[in-house]
Amino acid sequence: MIRSDIAWSSADRIVVRGKDLPGEILGKMGFGDMAFFLLAQKSPGKEESVLFNALLVTLVEHGITPSALAARLTYLGAPEAMQAAVAAGLCGLGSVFVGSTEGVARLLTENAGKPASQIVSENKRIPGLGHPLHKKIDPRTVRLFEIGRETGYYGKHCELMEAIGKEKKMVVNATGAIGALSCELGLDWKAVRGLGVMARAVGLVGHILEESRQPMAAEVWEKIEAEASAHLRREP
Amino acid sequence: MIRSDIAWSSADRIVVRGKDLPGEILGKMGFGDMAFFLLAQKSPGKEESVLFNALLVTLVEHGITPSALAARLTYLGAPEAMQAAVAAGLCGLGSVFVGSTEGVARLLTENAGKPASQIVSENKRIPGLGHPLHKKIDPRTVRLFEIGRETGYYGKHCELMEAIGKEKKMVVNATGAIGALSCELGLDWKAVRGLGVMARAVGLVGHILEESRQPMAAEVWEKIEAEASAHLRREP
Amino acid sequence: MIRSDIAWSSADRIVVRGKDLPGEILGKMGFGDMAFFLLAQKSPGKEESVLFNALLVTLVEHGITPSALAARLTYLGAPEAMQAAVAAGLCGLGSVFVGSTEGVARLLTENAGKPASQIVSENKRIPGLGHPLHKKIDPRTVRLFEIGRETGYYGKHCELMEAIGKEKKMVVNATGAIGALSCELGLDWKAVRGLGVMARAVGLVGHILEESRQPMAAEVWEKIEAEASAHLRREP
Amino acid sequence: MIRSDIAWSSADRIVVRGKDLPGEILGKMGFGDMAFFLLAQKSPGKEESVLFNALLVTLVEHGITPSALAARLTYLGAPEAMQAAVAAGLCGLGSVFVGSTEGVARLLTENAGKPASQIVSENKRIPGLGHPLHKKIDPRTVRLFEIGRETGYYGKHCELMEAIGKEKKMVVNATGAIGALSCELGLDWKAVRGLGVMARAVGLVGHILEESRQPMAAEVWEKIEAEASAHLRREP
Repeated sequence: MIRSDIAWSSADRIVVRGKDLPGEILGKMGFGDMAFFLLAQKSPGKEESVLFNALLVTLVEHGITPSALAARLTYLGAPEAMQAAVAAGLCGLGSVFVGSTEGVARLLTENAGKPASQIVSENKRIPGLGHPLHKKIDPRTVRLFEIGRETGYYGKHCELMEAIGKEKKMVVNATGAIGALSCELGLDWKAVRGLGVMARAVGLVGHILEESRQPMAAEVWEKIEAEASAHLRREP
Repeated sequence: MIRSDIAWSSADRIVVRGKDLPGEILGKMGFGDMAFFLLAQKSPGKEESVLFNALLVTLVEHGITPSALAARLTYLGAPEAMQAAVAAGLCGLGSVFVGSTEGVARLLTENAGKPASQIVSENKRIPGLGHPLHKKIDPRTVRLFEIGRETGYYGKHCELMEAIGKEKKMVVNATGAIGALSCELGLDWKAVRGLGVMARAVGLVGHILEESRQPMAAEVWEKIEAEASAHLRREP
Repeated sequence: MIRSDIAWSSADRIVVRGKDLPGEILGKMGFGDMAFFLLAQKSPGKEESVLFNALLVTLVEHGITPSALAARLTYLGAPEAMQAAVAAGLCGLGSVFVGSTEGVARLLTENAGKPASQIVSENKRIPGLGHPLHKKIDPRTVRLFEIGRETGYYGKHCELMEAIGKEKKMVVNATGAIGALSCELGLDWKAVRGLGVMARAVGLVGHILEESRQPMAAEVWEKIEAEASAHLRREP
Repeated sequence: MIRSDIAWSSADRIVVRGKDLPGEILGKMGFGDMAFFLLAQKSPGKEESVLFNALLVTLVEHGITPSALAARLTYLGAPEAMQAAVAAGLCGLGSVFVGSTEGVARLLTENAGKPASQIVSENKRIPGLGHPLHKKIDPRTVRLFEIGRETGYYGKHCELMEAIGKEKKMVVNATGAIGALSCELGLDWKAVRGLGVMARAVGLVGHILEESRQPMAAEVWEKIEAEASAHLRREP
């Protein structure tokens, strides 16, 4: 069936999920709340809004990440198509980085009610644990669970994720916290990777803007190319 | 020079533009304000926040657009990589759709102070005018300029854009209004296409979620394929 | 270690895998053989070349596929960036379409020596079987296995794939044949999805060229949008 | 009109531009010739085939380019979606790198018959000239024009491009030669960027294969991130 319930428009109207976009949404609903409205199909309450916006904001920036580098290197070749540079940066938000929020939300959804020890023994790889840099503690996790408590949304999914972390003796990283808190908000695990995708899209636009003013991509290229091929050049 | 001023992190800290992410941003800054913070390098004031969030929200949704279709058709083949489906949808935000915000902001920035008639005579193609559906009026433009006035940001760039529209006898569309209001907010035109890219990333996640629950892509494919090749099949 | 053995260049030389590009490759090695050279790190023999080129050619075209539609819809919005339209089309070559070559090659590599019945019982989902259109027989498979025999490369991996098809009572589709024949050629399964990606890149350029001359994307959009939102418009 | 003349299929047939894919193409037409067949809508003659394959092969590899780096950094985060890594690498083939073949072909097509000096004076930026590395001579250009002569296709477009290079006192780079020779082959300039896109798709698959065996992306990331943020870390 070719049918979408999201939006429709006519010559003088644009309606999104039953609300008139110009009349009922613009100027009244913030950007993060609009994202919640589309994923949950209802406007967020005040507490939901605080928590959901925090989940989104968490993944916007982590400095010169692989996705930021991919976007900047793409922009170097096609500055007339910055949307393609952002797209290139998003392509890498898969199972290893950012996309692991989905794995966490799915794991917690599908194993709700089971003890952490059983989940650990049944799943060889658990997403949302460990971080190459934030080894002892991920400061984003601490703060996100705190906001979860402040807003009344810290619950059984968060507890389970923390128990799994203890069982595995690994830190719950930001994607682990986001996956768990997304479950508390009742979001479908199929939408949860999308939080990181939205967030990073915002961050990548910031990187492209900086790259347009203070470029690094050409120098990254030259430096890495020289190092990567040095052994070939040395050969007789 | 390989140097970025956006963010840095250590084992226990993540700092974005001088602010501690967990301590000073999470739970305090909404998603739209975070985007402003990255593009303008300062937190938005209250009025700025209302206007900037409205600019972002405007472009999130317009129903089954070409970019929504491209994302859904991509997800059909690679449901394990929804980030790539969103990326595919973003790739088309170029000179024709959404990306025209950039053209508008650039035109208004580079021609500030000139009369509309001169700008029209000097530029064969003016972005931000006309819409295939919203022919007489784009209801988003009306509301956005209204919010511009309410927040005190409606100014010379908006006036110029409206004068250009009158000169060309064409409606100022949503990307025209967004381009003009971005100038009023002092945003660099190089960042302005990015507003639409961020916005549509949010909308596309919503489309992927709906596609995962209520798919249309396979049927779109079959229907269009049948129609497109009917004349070839009829040949002897 | 930042090191690549693929190519290096200096002011007057470009060397790929030890061969001088202008002097030893250009005009001497065809496009398909160049692809083999990069994946297998040796020039193909005459029979290898015939078979490998056939594997590539098979997946170039299948008419108005989801990837062709995604590319055309992307080009509609950003005609100045046709590379991004091709990229959008490639993003969907995942586990469902085309990318299943990888699943087949991996399955056959990791289960070499096992009987088909055991492989079927151990794997819930077997890639490379069935096709929505080519239900009784995939004519590409028949021809590819024939070329395999003609070139002396039809062997145990092909036999195993055909046995698996019989066991499951499903047709071995083109990606099944390509996966098996890639194993016969000794290709690493990690490269095998790449055959389809290369092939479809060629096909998508052809679609973009046709779209530039004889566009369909705008009409696809209008038609699908109207159908998808008809129920919303009917509401009071 | 929703109509494509490229291909159609039924339960037992796949027909591409009037030829039966299994019966008339597979095993008979090489990968490069298939690309020509789709762009020119005829099979290439022997000389055409040699030249066209050389054009494609030229742009397959140039070592650790920005597009290879973008693809490898993307693969690091989403190894399950190598097609998205190739797509990310292709997104940067725009006006600056590779995509300049299109600019050249368009310029030569639209200015055929004019003297080089006039073209230079009428166009501020001329694509296809200069190279950051191959400053005095681009060895690919020399060889490509030689193959052009050997195959009888070196003609007025090549002469014009060389004259433009002399006028500007800049080396004709590989994309300049490819643009000119594409015109000699009668290709539509709208398809010419596509040659580089096809070519680089092949090269990028080779880079992803090497990255899967001998990874560099994580180390590139760490190194560049450390350098880019060193000044922020030093601050009190």
